[in-house]
Amino acid sequence: MRKTIISILLVLLALPVAADEGMWLFNRPPLQQLKAKYGFEPTPQWLEHLQKASVRFNSGGSGSFVSPNGLTITNHHVGLDCLAKLGTAQHDYVKTGFRAKTLKEEVPCHDLELNVLMSMEDVTARVNAAVTPGMSSADAERARRATMNAIEKESLDKTGLRSDVVTLFQGGEYHLYRYKKYTDVRLVFAPEESIAFFGGDPDNFEYPRFDLDIAFFRAYENDKPVKTDDYLPFSPTGPTENELVFVSGNPGGTERLKTVAELEFIRDLRLPFTLDFMRRREVLLNIYAKRSAENARRAEDFLRGVENSRKVYLGQIGGLQDPSLFAAKNADEMAVRMKVGADPQLASQYGDAWSQIAILTEKNRQSYVERWFLGTGNTAGAFYSDLFGKARTIVRYVDETAKPNADRLREFRETNLESLKQSLYSEAPIYADLEIAKLADSLAFWLERFPNDPLVKQVLAGKAPLQRATELVNGSKLMSVAERKRLVEGGPSAVAASSDPMIQVARLIDPRSRQLRKEFEEQVDEPLRQAYAKVAQAKFRTSGGAMAPDATFTLRLSYGAVKGYSGPAGPSFPWVTTFAGAFQRAAEHQNMPPFDLPKTWLDAKPKLKLDTPLNFVATADIIGGNSGSPVTNRNNEFVGIVFDMNIPSLVYNFVWKEEDTRTVAVHSKGILEALRTIYGATELVNELTKK
Amino acid sequence: MRKTIISILLVLLALPVAADEGMWLFNRPPLQQLKAKYGFEPTPQWLEHLQKASVRFNSGGSGSFVSPNGLTITNHHVGLDCLAKLGTAQHDYVKTGFRAKTLKEEVPCHDLELNVLMSMEDVTARVNAAVTPGMSSADAERARRATMNAIEKESLDKTGLRSDVVTLFQGGEYHLYRYKKYTDVRLVFAPEESIAFFGGDPDNFEYPRFDLDIAFFRAYENDKPVKTDDYLPFSPTGPTENELVFVSGNPGGTERLKTVAELEFIRDLRLPFTLDFMRRREVLLNIYAKRSAENARRAEDFLRGVENSRKVYLGQIGGLQDPSLFAAKNADEMAVRMKVGADPQLASQYGDAWSQIAILTEKNRQSYVERWFLGTGNTAGAFYSDLFGKARTIVRYVDETAKPNADRLREFRETNLESLKQSLYSEAPIYADLEIAKLADSLAFWLERFPNDPLVKQVLAGKAPLQRATELVNGSKLMSVAERKRLVEGGPSAVAASSDPMIQVARLIDPRSRQLRKEFEEQVDEPLRQAYAKVAQAKFRTSGGAMAPDATFTLRLSYGAVKGYSGPAGPSFPWVTTFAGAFQRAAEHQNMPPFDLPKTWLDAKPKLKLDTPLNFVATADIIGGNSGSPVTNRNNEFVGIVFDMNIPSLVYNFVWKEEDTRTVAVHSKGILEALRTIYGATELVNELTKK
Repeated sequence: MRKTIISILLVLLALPVAADEGMWLFNRPPLQQLKAKYGFEPTPQWLEHLQKASVRFNSGGSGSFVSPNGLTITNHHVGLDCLAKLGTAQHDYVKTGFRAKTLKEEVPCHDLELNVLMSMEDVTARVNAAVTPGMSSADAERARRATMNAIEKESLDKTGLRSDVVTLFQGGEYHLYRYKKYTDVRLVFAPEESIAFFGGDPDNFEYPRFDLDIAFFRAYENDKPVKTDDYLPFSPTGPTENELVFVSGNPGGTERLKTVAELEFIRDLRLPFTLDFMRRREVLLNIYAKRSAENARRAEDFLRGVENSRKVYLGQIGGLQDPSLFAAKNADEMAVRMKVGADPQLASQYGDAWSQIAILTEKNRQSYVERWFLGTGNTAGAFYSDLFGKARTIVRYVDETAKPNADRLREFRETNLESLKQSLYSEAPIYADLEIAKLADSLAFWLERFPNDPLVKQVLAGKAPLQRATELVNGSKLMSVAERKRLVEGGPSAVAASSDPMIQVARLIDPRSRQLRKEFEEQVDEPLRQAYAKVAQAKFRTSGGAMAPDATFTLRLSYGAVKGYSGPAGPSFPWVTTFAGAFQRAAEHQNMPPFDLPKTWLDAKPKLKLDTPLNFVATADIIGGNSGSPVTNRNNEFVGIVFDMNIPSLVYNFVWKEEDTRTVAVHSKGILEALRTIYGATELVNELTKK
Repeated sequence: MRKTIISILLVLLALPVAADEGMWLFNRPPLQQLKAKYGFEPTPQWLEHLQKASVRFNSGGSGSFVSPNGLTITNHHVGLDCLAKLGTAQHDYVKTGFRAKTLKEEVPCHDLELNVLMSMEDVTARVNAAVTPGMSSADAERARRATMNAIEKESLDKTGLRSDVVTLFQGGEYHLYRYKKYTDVRLVFAPEESIAFFGGDPDNFEYPRFDLDIAFFRAYENDKPVKTDDYLPFSPTGPTENELVFVSGNPGGTERLKTVAELEFIRDLRLPFTLDFMRRREVLLNIYAKRSAENARRAEDFLRGVENSRKVYLGQIGGLQDPSLFAAKNADEMAVRMKVGADPQLASQYGDAWSQIAILTEKNRQSYVERWFLGTGNTAGAFYSDLFGKARTIVRYVDETAKPNADRLREFRETNLESLKQSLYSEAPIYADLEIAKLADSLAFWLERFPNDPLVKQVLAGKAPLQRATELVNGSKLMSVAERKRLVEGGPSAVAASSDPMIQVARLIDPRSRQLRKEFEEQVDEPLRQAYAKVAQAKFRTSGGAMAPDATFTLRLSYGAVKGYSGPAGPSFPWVTTFAGAFQRAAEHQNMPPFDLPKTWLDAKPKLKLDTPLNFVATADIIGGNSGSPVTNRNNEFVGIVFDMNIPSLVYNFVWKEEDTRTVAVHSKGILEALRTIYGATELVNELTKK
């Protein structure tokens, strides 16, 4: 026994010292670390400027203002959602790219929302005060949710800003975030997908890379471009090797605080199950897409998303299935628990947190798959269908909005209704044939896993999944935005009276879905928050140092150095790639997809400065959701845009290490060279570089 | 209750009367049916000629002799295994096609074996006599296996022919099949894959079709082409609408006799699990293939096979998840059971078979997944690796061949050793990078499903799956045929002394794998044989009519009419397609893969007679394994070659219906037109049409 512990400790000691780790809160920046390692001391003004120049995309990514006139840059793959929804069988903007030469030519996206973080406020004390000692976890969950909804409503009423209470440290703290919100967002420029996503799925999460993964949008208010002083001027030179850089964006989620017990659940159930349905969707969408060019266009955004997730989760499970990583994680946890156990006061406050989490995780595990199929939010795994998503939102909307704000499900809180309606009433096209294919497959999946569930039988109504999916999709009127509005405005009675089969199915499964959610929120999520608050506190108290919370798709600051790396098996990866490299890689693959450069690039080759930097890597700590984040220098200039991280980084979700994990970005000098020489987009270059 | 039974019976009565159903034994041909429906009476000589002109490919398909000089035609996709193995990075015969203008240019395949069925003999009495009343099922299994091995050995010694005891009616009968075996088989001609598999995965199992899915091989003996009188002369006109045609080939397996209890197991566990790992392999192979053209070439044969299986199983589960199909199957079974129950003698003989099968199926279910991972034969799901397959064969070979023939595992019986060694010592290339990718994924899959199994941990030896797979593949010397021979010839001591990690792993898991197999064979398979023998007898006795046994990848005769059909939703599908249709479909898809015609076709278009028939459909009853089967007319002429069946046919496996299910074939006239006008293969046309 003693021997085991010693050997684990040796593993721990052998781990690299965390260096540039951390997705830091803007209201708790890593000032000491920056000063100690890089001799840099950002001022409060410097931080506020970067914060307000940063933009969150509701399509799941990040971006930044890059001109005083609301011009915003993000990744092509973050803008893809808008590009795909604007496309038709005649105009495939994803494939061909898009360029507006004047403001008039800029095209409004269907349902894009941008958020700019204006302020942060610690409201932990008020949220936790709602939960009194001895409260049942059901009461605690309700009290906490009511308080969060109330804080947000007060803030919205007072400031008019989008107001979200954000849970940090898995429940250790609660901060109120206020956002300026832009819902009139227009497409300005996008290159062809073949260069934005050069190398396709094979090169995704790889390096060296040669991608122009950018797109420009413009935020409008009252039909005029937004004016702002908080924008990042484009650096014409970009970063150089070893330079200190910053990444300001919205990492979607990490799980570094998670205990070993929960990681085991993630490794042995959540990830395998998630990968099963991801592969299922990938095969399904590929079959659909391969039938014709138009099918391929319709499925593109879904398929890209699924391929990307599949690669992320493969990387994650690959990491968790590595016993050495798990042993290190275990050693880490034991070290904290030993310190806690050695101090009677710490032990009585925090000592039971880890075993509580193990028990709660087991509860979570038991209903995990059924909850996934029936869904807790506005989607449900058994119903892989946009129309179903609309139906569930409508069914719940009329019920929830009839209740006081404090009692509502989180997503129907007063402060979220506007954003929710923008999405519900989106005119973005929904394709019946694709809906049927997706829904038939997900219903079949549900039937496979729960062959004897009476609810499954009720939903299928004696039909085979394909036949039932066809009925549900073809019989529904929810393709019509007017019909969605009619039901919402008609309230519970209109919904109850609806003969729309998709509405009826959404109503049919709602009691069970709500019950599962309630049980989860009361019996798992709330006690988990309390237990993780203890774990976080125990870590603070035993480590002494500052700690960044796990990512929550809210604004964070990361930093690091621009530098290359060596892989496990040898080759050295340079800090930067060039345009010449892109042409070389395309030639190695006979310019065949997904290694095909667009015609614009082939035509422009003679004029291009081929040694111009195109992509580069840095050590900054990021994760999915950071896509589109600006990379900035000490002068708060835009020197690049994050679009990827390399394969070893995929375990970042659980544990961070610096040696071979890198953020991958497009170089600002490369962006300017492409815009100028390949696309002749002088209006854009002028706007970006005007002093 | 009464109401339920009546409504099920109504469903039964509404079912179409079985018409051209049946994959008939050549020694029990459907003489009455042919005479009654088509007025045709084949002579014994007619049947023997067709039987001996039919050829089985060990790569999993069928074919036929089409000249007196051993020339054999099959499908391109049956020949694909040989074509892929002959390919190199420099010569991709799959893509470019192949043509030998003279005998000298014909290239030997690495490990292809052809079988021609010479005779059949009913040995049921002798096999069943080995099993005496009151024997434990373990003893019964051993006695039955010993007798089968002995019958085969006696036959081989007596005749020199490959001798297999075939299990028919799931255990109702046993027949001894004797085959002439050809192992020197050379590639003569193959078209480009893009026309052989025109429409790719999207059009697979669809109709109308436009595929030239053919390949020619030649059987040699003593380095000379085989001479035979039993060949099928090519019909220059081919079949016409409504004409009676025959299909003579080797359907791989059907499960029409299976009881409802076993079909539920198939629907709820076997098929979902199989599809899970098929999708997993499809995603894996796609990721690998997309990285480069050479990767795509290396993975092509695997990927094609996986895509094909995935489509088959999706069709099967789609059928089984249709409650109406299941209700009909249930009604069918109840009708037999009611008749059996109503007759005291039948009841006492057969009445308990269905409940026995239900119990045995539950036993089967409990160990199904673990058996799949550890494998019973020469492959194992946890080890998706050709090198592992070689390792397991070697490990078992030395142990099994040390035992008396009667006691060996079936595949190591004396009469099978020659074929087994041809495969084991094949020089076909094995690619280390593809091996690692496949093995890493299958090891990860095993770990996901059995995270706490000590055997999994022993195999992984403290490494992550990718790391361990890399060690196993790179550390193994089994790429070398000489090393495989050295181990086999060195016997148990050489294998025990081997430090080859793949051999060591194969040895490590062998005890558990053998134990699972033994338990399955003794406790599930043997009693299932006995129970299904009862079900088959009960069906004979209560139906009165002749019944064809389920398919077993042995030679069968099917028949039917050449005719079009209507789909469920309407459009009428013509009995034949033409060359013009191929050009039209390619144009609709801008000649983009997988709808791209090869250059040879585009160049030859002006010279082609575009109204020449290319593909046609017939009602004959087939299943996978029939690929490459000759379609013949009353005069025993070759009028076409089976290459597919349509989507509705995929439930054929469990239940047959005639209205919209069709066999899809290449028309003999189309083959001649393509060979003559597109490929200028006059030597081949002359050989096929010489009187």
